[in-house]
Amino acid sequence: MKSIPRTLEWIGDLPGHLRLLDQTLLPTDLAYRDCRSVEEVWESIRNLRVRGAPAIGIAAAFGVVLGMQVHTESASCAERLNHICDYLRSSRPTAVNLFWALDRMEKKLLSEPEALAKDRPSSLTLHALTRILLSEAIAIQREDRQMCLAIGRIGAHLIHDGYGVLTHCNAGSLATSEFGTALAVLYSAHDQGKKFHVFADETRPLLQGARLTAWELQQAGIDVTLLCDNMAGQVMREGRVHMVIVGADRIAANGDTANKIGTYSVAVLAKAHGIPFYVAAPSSTFDLSISDGSQIPIEQRDPREITEGFGKVIAPTGVRVYNPAFDVTPAELITGIITEKGLIHPADARIIRTN
Amino acid sequence: MKSIPRTLEWIGDLPGHLRLLDQTLLPTDLAYRDCRSVEEVWESIRNLRVRGAPAIGIAAAFGVVLGMQVHTESASCAERLNHICDYLRSSRPTAVNLFWALDRMEKKLLSEPEALAKDRPSSLTLHALTRILLSEAIAIQREDRQMCLAIGRIGAHLIHDGYGVLTHCNAGSLATSEFGTALAVLYSAHDQGKKFHVFADETRPLLQGARLTAWELQQAGIDVTLLCDNMAGQVMREGRVHMVIVGADRIAANGDTANKIGTYSVAVLAKAHGIPFYVAAPSSTFDLSISDGSQIPIEQRDPREITEGFGKVIAPTGVRVYNPAFDVTPAELITGIITEKGLIHPADARIIRTN
Repeated sequence: MKSIPRTLEWIGDLPGHLRLLDQTLLPTDLAYRDCRSVEEVWESIRNLRVRGAPAIGIAAAFGVVLGMQVHTESASCAERLNHICDYLRSSRPTAVNLFWALDRMEKKLLSEPEALAKDRPSSLTLHALTRILLSEAIAIQREDRQMCLAIGRIGAHLIHDGYGVLTHCNAGSLATSEFGTALAVLYSAHDQGKKFHVFADETRPLLQGARLTAWELQQAGIDVTLLCDNMAGQVMREGRVHMVIVGADRIAANGDTANKIGTYSVAVLAKAHGIPFYVAAPSSTFDLSISDGSQIPIEQRDPREITEGFGKVIAPTGVRVYNPAFDVTPAELITGIITEKGLIHPADARIIRTN
Repeated sequence: MKSIPRTLEWIGDLPGHLRLLDQTLLPTDLAYRDCRSVEEVWESIRNLRVRGAPAIGIAAAFGVVLGMQVHTESASCAERLNHICDYLRSSRPTAVNLFWALDRMEKKLLSEPEALAKDRPSSLTLHALTRILLSEAIAIQREDRQMCLAIGRIGAHLIHDGYGVLTHCNAGSLATSEFGTALAVLYSAHDQGKKFHVFADETRPLLQGARLTAWELQQAGIDVTLLCDNMAGQVMREGRVHMVIVGADRIAANGDTANKIGTYSVAVLAKAHGIPFYVAAPSSTFDLSISDGSQIPIEQRDPREITEGFGKVIAPTGVRVYNPAFDVTPAELITGIITEKGLIHPADARIIRTN
């Protein structure tokens, strides 16, 4: 497989810095952003330079390291950690993986007795504790990578020679440490020498499909055709789509799946054309505390993403806009869910609970 | 009803000129373009300053008048007419109404004995013949207006208080002489004092829903919410859509309907949610020479409409693009077809043939 530039990586040791591929500049410019402070990580998450639930979590974990590696005169170790994590949590308040990664970093540090001292730590102690945090951030990244590889391996057998595979939004390398979730399945099948073709929905309003998915599949040497979201039904009708695969933001205990707006429409269209519809996501995406998708709140985003999304006003002033970030695809429209642990098929409550 | 600026009108008598609302500048600028030559009409059709099948036909008819009203030294009347019509036909070679209107103008003139003279006409003769052409162009425009009013009147009873009505693309005032087809139904219901809400798909790639439909509904004082095409399924799922109404580019003898790309997906979604799906179009949109939609060719348009549609490159260089202009909605997904002659319900071959 041709290689896709790395989404994010830690450069150096301690002190070191976080290098991010600036996704706001894709696909026209391939440029990196070196974050040397926690503020720069916050800004990169806030402004979508790094996006995708797993990638945000990893970036935030390294952000904690950046915040702690600077020796300051005031505050105990626990106070500083708490301050840094709270600050990073405010970068994208709805991102579940962000909270998960920061909680994990906090828990890791607070299991060290030295971190609990009420006084300002010595610079030697601080250095040792920051090293523990760096190891934890690297572990989060490594586990994410392994999770993506496992999803790819497990899902690849679903792809056959000659298939047309439709995807929506970007559940790819750019959304994770590497490989992605839905796209990991495609990369894995491609590595196995399978010949297939991908249809990438452009994914309005933020065009992650056009800007990111089409770009990374092209980088990887996989055949891809870009289409507007409203063309998915037509390619299906023409018999050119044999399978749909998408990522997920949250999956309820019964298999109902929240993902980028438009996913639900694609699922309905797939059903109407008898095309299998798969979700690929790490098992951490399951939220067993909610019984079904009706309990997943649908966040409304800034109307300007629709009315002036590309630097040009394309709608009349003052028009009312509907701009939900996500929708929920009911489990009955989902053929199977591919996780790093295996394929859940069909996606129903009993099987999910026992996995 | 608040008034919507006129799509196009003839200014003055003879010589006169054609004033077009320049639709490429909407919704940010409301500006007119005065066409004083056939070349300016050609350019306006070519560059979508005027668009929508009926409006293109009317503009071309007035274009013929502009071409003929200039006294030149050479050619017989029939030769000049033929030359002008051929030139206008090349402005948008796939627009059926363009050909229809030009054929009608030619037929009208060639039914006049003076027009058949082999010699160059006297300026008095030319003036008289051009007046006949102007009357015919005005008649085409008037008939279009009456057709739109009739469609509105016939369809209005389908709208009830509290309805949410979803539409795709622009089948409105801007696509016709006035009132539109699908939107005529909404204007008529609004005039009757009915309270309803419209959801307008933005309609990628050219955003006729955002730029034109949202704008003209707003001008008319009708409540409208703009959404991306991939959000239609979600508003339906939320129970906010009670009816879908769209226009048509061509309708086969069995009721299969070609319309703007994305219409088919909306129809599948409507069916899945038990929402009635109506097409509104003049009876001239029926093409009884084709038995079903499989015989309607699907034109592919310039990939740049997708990759750089917002004045900014939003997809990687060289990516393959799928950009069909239309899709075909099969008759079984259509609840009824509203024409100026009545409501065809259900949309099946037997009823269409006898109407």
